[in-house]
Amino acid sequence: MLATAEREVAALQRRYLADVQLHLRDAIADSESGFFGLLRYHLGWEDANGKPVSESTGKALRPVLCLAACDLAGGDWQKALPAAAALELVHNFSLIHDDIQDQDVTRRGRPTLWSITGVAPALAAGNAMRVIADQVAASLTSRGFTAELVVQACNELTLRYLEMIEGQYLDVSFEQADDVTTEQYVDMIGRKTGALIENAMYLGALLATGEQAKAQAFGGVGRALGLAFQIRDDYLGVWGDPGSTGKPVGSDIQRKKKSLPVVYLFEHATQADRVWLDKAYAEAEVSGLNVERVLGLLGDLGASAYVQQQAELHAQGALATAAGLGLSTEARVLLNSMAEFFVTRDK
Amino acid sequence: MLATAEREVAALQRRYLADVQLHLRDAIADSESGFFGLLRYHLGWEDANGKPVSESTGKALRPVLCLAACDLAGGDWQKALPAAAALELVHNFSLIHDDIQDQDVTRRGRPTLWSITGVAPALAAGNAMRVIADQVAASLTSRGFTAELVVQACNELTLRYLEMIEGQYLDVSFEQADDVTTEQYVDMIGRKTGALIENAMYLGALLATGEQAKAQAFGGVGRALGLAFQIRDDYLGVWGDPGSTGKPVGSDIQRKKKSLPVVYLFEHATQADRVWLDKAYAEAEVSGLNVERVLGLLGDLGASAYVQQQAELHAQGALATAAGLGLSTEARVLLNSMAEFFVTRDK
Repeated sequence: MLATAEREVAALQRRYLADVQLHLRDAIADSESGFFGLLRYHLGWEDANGKPVSESTGKALRPVLCLAACDLAGGDWQKALPAAAALELVHNFSLIHDDIQDQDVTRRGRPTLWSITGVAPALAAGNAMRVIADQVAASLTSRGFTAELVVQACNELTLRYLEMIEGQYLDVSFEQADDVTTEQYVDMIGRKTGALIENAMYLGALLATGEQAKAQAFGGVGRALGLAFQIRDDYLGVWGDPGSTGKPVGSDIQRKKKSLPVVYLFEHATQADRVWLDKAYAEAEVSGLNVERVLGLLGDLGASAYVQQQAELHAQGALATAAGLGLSTEARVLLNSMAEFFVTRDK
Repeated sequence: MLATAEREVAALQRRYLADVQLHLRDAIADSESGFFGLLRYHLGWEDANGKPVSESTGKALRPVLCLAACDLAGGDWQKALPAAAALELVHNFSLIHDDIQDQDVTRRGRPTLWSITGVAPALAAGNAMRVIADQVAASLTSRGFTAELVVQACNELTLRYLEMIEGQYLDVSFEQADDVTTEQYVDMIGRKTGALIENAMYLGALLATGEQAKAQAFGGVGRALGLAFQIRDDYLGVWGDPGSTGKPVGSDIQRKKKSLPVVYLFEHATQADRVWLDKAYAEAEVSGLNVERVLGLLGDLGASAYVQQQAELHAQGALATAAGLGLSTEARVLLNSMAEFFVTRDK
């Protein structure tokens, strides 16, 4: 099953990504000061000395979802390319700042931008990335859309990345919080991850149809897919194969991330275990031995099955919402594959 | 003379700022998570515990310039309030991130946001501030402007704050550079400070007249005023009264800021002094004794007179540009006062 879903998503990537990439390259053409070299480094186009390197463009799921939604809603996906490129830039803005916030030194197997340049230039580069995103989104006006529709698209993009920023803030503050409920967790990931994926499908459908209601319906599918995606991410953060994910085992636990496995553990641990957990989490970091014990407790509770089930429930929710969109059989099969890919991917 | 210019600017502030403030308060109404409390703290509306404090609203020069330009160009300044509020929010976004970049722990006599919350939440708060700025700017559509005009206004704001971000990046990278020419310096401050002040006057005139050419002419005046403003800032950073500026004597020198006095010194020092300077600036920071010697060298070269003269030249340039705008005598007197205030202010 996985192989089919993966193949279908790969086919979508082939369909769209070369054009998205051209659009991105165009948007990050050189500035006199060499400042944009920092952006190209982060995107994996250049090494730290500005020498072009062979590309690893990443999954680019947000552009793919945006253009697929445009396609599915009967639009001309080529016209929606600026929106797709803007989404990828917003996503990468969030990654540059995320790495600063989390003090992560590795991403996609390379040193993170701030770890090379220091905080100040990387912070500025992240800001520039998002401004360029805004410019690219605004360039939709040159694709034959009305100014009103472009304003609506840009406003909605802005709203969703404000949600995303708030989600990142909540994610970081939850690291210091004692008890984060499942409800708070779902709210947080809805903002951190759901909002931009919602926006991807919203924009695709809006640009295809010009209809707010249709766009919102597609957006709802995206939001649910985003939740499924993030919960699978949380799963991989604890039980993923480090060789695939690029993250060391237990790193999310060590840094006290309140990912779903940990939230579940805090809510379901025995009283004695909870006393121990509170002590282990009162330290600045969860130590290596304690990470082992947390993993043991998660195993005892069957947390991995629970977490995977939650991811699948949200994916099913997405498909149930999509049933109301009046899509063709072919389109429904495609969405099905995407949803399946979101919850079965191993990296 | 100063007193008159100061009084005129204070009168402008009284004319506009209560309405700007209302607009800002409205934009930063509560979010469920309490996240926006960080923004209100930075703006000086609340203390670190979220308790309201008596306001010190700051100079708010960008909103004042925007609304004054709208007035001068024959528009209804009330309609331009969202633009003015957006400018103040963009400015404060840059201050929050600036403080992180420079690791400054005090601003306006209070602990900086990041020094209280840590880097991660403050970084997110700065991002949120700018998103809210975008939203506020986009709300111009509800003030009877056409969508085309609002798109144009928002695009121009975006372009200018991309310049500002690049200027901040250059400012930080100049700290590590050996020789920064006056030309590079002027380019940098044009971006860092000139771009947003240009935008303030551009937006005011654009919203008043709907005319791109008129807006650009006003923008040119703003850009020159911005250069004058920044050079006076550099002057105060070395020779200002710490009691007025709130900055310790020599702090800009200590951290190797390539402000105009220092750029001038590097360009005009004797060969022997230059050798010494290169050594002093090879350290991570310029030490206390070396700061004294730098101040001595600046004195020997008459740098303070040079720097002040440069500020005044740009202010005169602004007024010369303004002469082409066809303003009333009254309007010209007002602009004159503003230019004078920019280069004579002591804080």
